Amino acid sequence: MRLLTATTCLTLLAVAAYADPLPSWNDTEAKSAIIEFVETVTDPASEDFVPQADRIATFDNDGCLWAEQPVYFQLLYAIDVLKEKAGSDPSILTSDALKAGAEGDLEGILAGGMEGLLEVINVSHSGVTVEDFQSSAGAWLESAVHPSTEMPFGEMIYQPMLELLAYLRDEGFATYIVSGGGIDFIRAFAEDTYGIPPWQVVGTEGDTTYAADGDAPTLIKNGGITFLDDKEGKPVGIVRHIGQRPIFAAGNSDGDFQMLEYTTAGDGARFGMLVHHTDADREFAYDRDSHVGQLARGLDEGEDRGWLIVDMAQDWSKVWPGK
Amino acid sequence: MRLLTATTCLTLLAVAAYADPLPSWNDTEAKSAIIEFVETVTDPASEDFVPQADRIATFDNDGCLWAEQPVYFQLLYAIDVLKEKAGSDPSILTSDALKAGAEGDLEGILAGGMEGLLEVINVSHSGVTVEDFQSSAGAWLESAVHPSTEMPFGEMIYQPMLELLAYLRDEGFATYIVSGGGIDFIRAFAEDTYGIPPWQVVGTEGDTTYAADGDAPTLIKNGGITFLDDKEGKPVGIVRHIGQRPIFAAGNSDGDFQMLEYTTAGDGARFGMLVHHTDADREFAYDRDSHVGQLARGLDEGEDRGWLIVDMAQDWSKVWPGK
Repeated sequence: MRLLTATTCLTLLAVAAYADPLPSWNDTEAKSAIIEFVETVTDPASEDFVPQADRIATFDNDGCLWAEQPVYFQLLYAIDVLKEKAGSDPSILTSDALKAGAEGDLEGILAGGMEGLLEVINVSHSGVTVEDFQSSAGAWLESAVHPSTEMPFGEMIYQPMLELLAYLRDEGFATYIVSGGGIDFIRAFAEDTYGIPPWQVVGTEGDTTYAADGDAPTLIKNGGITFLDDKEGKPVGIVRHIGQRPIFAAGNSDGDFQMLEYTTAGDGARFGMLVHHTDADREFAYDRDSHVGQLARGLDEGEDRGWLIVDMAQDWSKVWPGK
Repeated sequence: MRLLTATTCLTLLAVAAYADPLPSWNDTEAKSAIIEFVETVTDPASEDFVPQADRIATFDNDGCLWAEQPVYFQLLYAIDVLKEKAGSDPSILTSDALKAGAEGDLEGILAGGMEGLLEVINVSHSGVTVEDFQSSAGAWLESAVHPSTEMPFGEMIYQPMLELLAYLRDEGFATYIVSGGGIDFIRAFAEDTYGIPPWQVVGTEGDTTYAADGDAPTLIKNGGITFLDDKEGKPVGIVRHIGQRPIFAAGNSDGDFQMLEYTTAGDGARFGMLVHHTDADREFAYDRDSHVGQLARGLDEGEDRGWLIVDMAQDWSKVWPGK
């Protein structure tokens, strides 16, 4: 083992300290605000210092860590599964939304509102073990391709957010996903994609039962939502799974409003941020009038509440990894 | 900084390796079986080696980590709260079980079966924030005293199980509680008592809603069970919270049967254990006919399933810490 002199060590430490933890973020106020918060809460000399066990950060998934246009990717997966199921048993198409789903008619599904969307997801996600469901979803994310970007869905993740997750973990944070998407669906890729293990994923939960027939006890998805992890549900999901108020929360839509509200209402230094989709060239531009990821109240009240509104076009030098 | 010679280091390592990780366990087959399992799954040269991220161990709480006689301590807490609530508003006592509860009449509550018990818990645990509930429960556990041992309830934990938790964590396991008891109640003491943080507690969940009136958004307990983490519910609770099948599960009653079944049905080395309450002198002796912690199917089938049945009287040299 080679010995390093004290001077060499100090030089290496200095280089490490000055390396940019967020290279895909432009040098704007957004980046400074994030770094200033992290440096404050991790500085033992600061009055806002937060012990490592309390450094909990929560992230929405759709539209925050990966894309969500033209519609939530989980719905596109559900449509593909529904088509296959309906091919062998058309009698499962018992409603207009399901019929639209089996034809890949997005507008037809969304005409049924959230109910139509949930119906397509419930029927496609039922009668399968959790393990088989996750294998199927994982394979789909690698092979199915996005209609406009032509990228595999599983690669439509935001490089700046990957850097933010890694930066927070390097600084002793536990990084959780708290998503309106299905918990089993997100767990199919969260560990490989974001470095977030299954037990740090909070999401919408479907009715699941234990089946011990025969030699292989397992968990079966029955369809039907038992817990909706969206809006007022997000703080509930946090208290059920994490049991502690986060100090950092990131989202992008009004579905994240209550998560940010709950997080930033705690004592001491807190950080709330909303990713604003302003970049039609590199990604998509949408907010108040979008049928997915609608952001209106967050834009109206966020700044007054001290939340950071990230302007994707201005604050990110890069959107996708490797591009 | 003093430098250690290589020989000193090796000696220290050897001492550490030979130190008994389970000093309150007698040198019986139970202790050997546990240690052999842990040494096997942590040995990179073993074909049953398990990577650290997959070393998940789940523990029941009542009757496994702490005592549960004459009845679950959470019910005794609920009775004390109910008495207080009924003192200022007797109109809340709308059933025989609740009336019995307010009089501290255990048999009267249990005459109503599980329903009566849940009613007392629901009424006493509602209309309070999660944070206030946990402060109240935590204070009660330190001050209220067990009727027969005269120990504070919060101290009626099993020293051999504390050692087992610490041993597993030292060997890279994540240790979870998976209990039929209330998740908020257990979190009131699990970190201080067992070293288990809130996000590693899985339990029965009550209806909880987010309230953002005024300046202090918080979570309110409404009473009413939304998820029962017992029997078939335990594997469901595991898949919801942990998202991965454990390799080690410990319980003491038939309420833990499915957790052990699910755990030990996985591939590779697995460990299931049941604490059998055989020690009327130092703790309590009960199994098939007990109204709490009934253990019958586990005794009938456990051995054939390869589960370890721990004989508390024979296998433990000590029951309580400090005694």
